[in-house]
Amino acid sequence: MTRVMLTVAYDGSAYHGWQFQPGAVSIESVLNEKLTQLLREPVKVIGASRTDAGVHALGNIAVFDTASRIPAEKFSYALNQKLPEDIRIRSSRRAPEDFHPRKVTSVKTYEYRILNEEFPNPLERLYAHFTYTPLSEERMEQAGRYLIGKHDFKSFCSLRTQAETTVREIRSLEVIRRGSEIVIRIRGYGFLYNMVRIIAGTLMEAGSGKYPPEHVKEILDACDRAAAGPTAPARGLTLISYEFPGLEHAAAQEGSNA
Amino acid sequence: MTRVMLTVAYDGSAYHGWQFQPGAVSIESVLNEKLTQLLREPVKVIGASRTDAGVHALGNIAVFDTASRIPAEKFSYALNQKLPEDIRIRSSRRAPEDFHPRKVTSVKTYEYRILNEEFPNPLERLYAHFTYTPLSEERMEQAGRYLIGKHDFKSFCSLRTQAETTVREIRSLEVIRRGSEIVIRIRGYGFLYNMVRIIAGTLMEAGSGKYPPEHVKEILDACDRAAAGPTAPARGLTLISYEFPGLEHAAAQEGSNA
Repeated sequence: MTRVMLTVAYDGSAYHGWQFQPGAVSIESVLNEKLTQLLREPVKVIGASRTDAGVHALGNIAVFDTASRIPAEKFSYALNQKLPEDIRIRSSRRAPEDFHPRKVTSVKTYEYRILNEEFPNPLERLYAHFTYTPLSEERMEQAGRYLIGKHDFKSFCSLRTQAETTVREIRSLEVIRRGSEIVIRIRGYGFLYNMVRIIAGTLMEAGSGKYPPEHVKEILDACDRAAAGPTAPARGLTLISYEFPGLEHAAAQEGSNA
Repeated sequence: MTRVMLTVAYDGSAYHGWQFQPGAVSIESVLNEKLTQLLREPVKVIGASRTDAGVHALGNIAVFDTASRIPAEKFSYALNQKLPEDIRIRSSRRAPEDFHPRKVTSVKTYEYRILNEEFPNPLERLYAHFTYTPLSEERMEQAGRYLIGKHDFKSFCSLRTQAETTVREIRSLEVIRRGSEIVIRIRGYGFLYNMVRIIAGTLMEAGSGKYPPEHVKEILDACDRAAAGPTAPARGLTLISYEFPGLEHAAAQEGSNA
């Protein structure tokens, strides 16, 4: 058996999220269906991130096992022939046989996009949250600085979480303005359920002047979901990329032994 | 009666173009329907550009007459409440009673977007043409220079045209690369049917090395549609903005008289 790792991009607008749900179309179920057709053997992918309905991805990760002798790097081309236009495999490669994308250390990068002008732009409506309330990207970035590092993010976690601990580490958080668009770019080791969207909702409140940037420190210390801002809508969120430091280390070692 | 001028943005993906067609949903028919509902009087808009199916706009123009006393600048808000999310009115203002957007001098700006990387990006699929053939934006811009100015653009015009003359003037043509995206930005006084899409198809051929940039001069001189490249797909094209020099001149005069 070969374990294959796919980098998956998708427009989440038409899907009920990543995870299989009976009676609903999910990214996972489409991948399973098309891989099963292609390989003529039952295939079940394991996803790295089980994104919510409406959330997009440029670099989610899926792995699966196959008895096929098709070289791993050929899967992207073959699978893209079968997939709908709103799901694309950006690359495929062989992974170690025991590689499980949710059970190893990973660094994820997310972007939350906000369109901040007088009227919504129909060409951005599926990929950015719209608000006409003027936002200061400087205030948002100042507020975001309190979140960088290792903290208990209980205030920024949906009450529906099943996580054992709410301590997480954010490695970087930038707020960039490109014309009328504000992008919150967050990179970290794992995130709690809805954490990026609650951070986005909170930074937007700081950016609109509802409270000073330093109030975000108090929100963090409160360890109370009610202290933070609202969960920003799914459509603004895109999972940009995954890094697996262990996998790259193993690949480098393998390379040096060859 | 008041003549009102709307600046209209839309995602053309779901529409059979601007112009009313029996049995098909067009931008024009949606605007007529919603304005008629809003004003409780039959309304028919006059569009500046009758864009094709799948073409997008950030700044198309529509005018209509109404007996209503609603101030012209309030229409954008009222109408956006009724319109679907993929059509937005970006501004509304009063226009001179005899203003007809297709019968006055206007300068239009179009952008043609091309995604040029190995795999299509699902988040761009409706708003950019995709090609994995590597394109040189320098060669495309060199080729485009031969088109700037006043020329007979017969080679860059659909055979279906009904235009009396195929002489047009392009004021500027730039080719900009933003990461994996190439944008052709063209500004000119009116364009022939499919002209921007045929220019895009031709510049892509020059950019891929199919012929040298200077060959575009020969294509122009041939005055033959068969000499130019293919018509690039509608989805990559966005009508960015309209300028009406006469209208702005009139407004400035009115302002100085006040």
